[in-house]
Amino acid sequence: MSPTDRIRDHAGQGAATTVAAHRSRRRLRADRARQLADLLRRQLLTGAFPDGALPHESTLAAEYRASRNTVRQALDLLRHEGLVERQPGVGTLVVARKYPHGLDRLMGLAETLREHGRVTNEVRAMGPVPAPAPVAERLQVPSGTDVLCIERLRRLGGLPLSLDITYIPLDIGTELLGADLENTDVFRLLEAVTGQPLGHAEVTLEAVNADAHSAGVLEAPRGAAVLMLERLTHLADGRPVDLEFIRFRGDRITMSGLLHRSL
Amino acid sequence: MSPTDRIRDHAGQGAATTVAAHRSRRRLRADRARQLADLLRRQLLTGAFPDGALPHESTLAAEYRASRNTVRQALDLLRHEGLVERQPGVGTLVVARKYPHGLDRLMGLAETLREHGRVTNEVRAMGPVPAPAPVAERLQVPSGTDVLCIERLRRLGGLPLSLDITYIPLDIGTELLGADLENTDVFRLLEAVTGQPLGHAEVTLEAVNADAHSAGVLEAPRGAAVLMLERLTHLADGRPVDLEFIRFRGDRITMSGLLHRSL
Repeated sequence: MSPTDRIRDHAGQGAATTVAAHRSRRRLRADRARQLADLLRRQLLTGAFPDGALPHESTLAAEYRASRNTVRQALDLLRHEGLVERQPGVGTLVVARKYPHGLDRLMGLAETLREHGRVTNEVRAMGPVPAPAPVAERLQVPSGTDVLCIERLRRLGGLPLSLDITYIPLDIGTELLGADLENTDVFRLLEAVTGQPLGHAEVTLEAVNADAHSAGVLEAPRGAAVLMLERLTHLADGRPVDLEFIRFRGDRITMSGLLHRSL
Repeated sequence: MSPTDRIRDHAGQGAATTVAAHRSRRRLRADRARQLADLLRRQLLTGAFPDGALPHESTLAAEYRASRNTVRQALDLLRHEGLVERQPGVGTLVVARKYPHGLDRLMGLAETLREHGRVTNEVRAMGPVPAPAPVAERLQVPSGTDVLCIERLRRLGGLPLSLDITYIPLDIGTELLGADLENTDVFRLLEAVTGQPLGHAEVTLEAVNADAHSAGVLEAPRGAAVLMLERLTHLADGRPVDLEFIRFRGDRITMSGLLHRSL
């Protein structure tokens, strides 16, 4: 190896080290920005900024012992989630609110969000359909029997919140046909029609990207994160009466509950 | 209005009617495709296709009384979610599996997924940090006191499953520094270190789009839907000891539980 090669080699290593150090710094900042965004998201969701504005970047930087760049990156993450808007000369404003949906008790949407505003339902489609095998099986009706299928777009204070598909056995479903579905939870109607309270529900939650059509209906960007809830609700006597597939806008809802170590 | 105008007008109306009818058909097909996709997703997640292949399009069309176009569109939705792949001449193959995480009992990831494979943890960062106010408040330590912060990438059978940030009070955290965090749930370690079982946890679930950096770490596409879990876990004696922010890949996990109408 000639001296020149050695110098070139050394210079190359130096450059590589600088790039690696730079990458590592960038990675660390991205990690710290995410950590800060998680803390601010929590503050935001629990109403810690009642006047609708976040503290100034420099205040946040001091409070969270972070660099201004990290703070900016964290606020940018929240902006991408649609939770805040940044206005030059004004600051960072809270623009979206997420509503808490309980995971501890089986409740309809209007019941659970009563204190946050009025839930209205746009019935997009409603009518009997032959039950596909997986629906029939879960509702314990013979495959191919007609069940009532209802598709609703649900709004809170006029803003789209969820897109729900509901399957109900037809003997109960028929009695719902004349009901005020626009303003009443199906849960309430099921209890009124059957004369017994609901018992329990099996629920499954997933996060999925909204397909173009669902996004359009929910007035959300294509690919927006959606909280999918599948719920099979039983009457108090155990009969399954309500199979639902609900797409909640991810930027409008949170699900909260209490878990215990031992049952 | 001249006869020509009348004809033109009539033709215009006809065209409008045709466009509206076409739109309505397309909307209906999109609705039906989504409904079918929801049913197939459920089948897929509960292992209804044990040989890893979905039935042929024409079989699905007959079974679900849907048109071939609706079936194709439904399969396309599942493909976009990363759940199936469509191979010409072969058919529709299940390519991703979602793992069930219980919502009924407080459990660590390795515990809950034991039957599905081995959970390993890559510790990306670990060390004391001054507790930011929202962390200090929830862990009931004075603001600015050092807490242990751990960032882990968790894998099941080698595949990235979640990115976790964990904050633990330092008196307990210090004892975790030498522990086998690569192969052990923090829950298990907390119980071993404190000599008492965990009690309960407050959890909040959200669906968010992954930021570029989180997506990179999780090896998911940018913007992929992520199931965010915030969890504050308490010891049996009530002391809060573990605040976590967990990003689960939406295409790898579901959360399931049982809800009751009355508590």
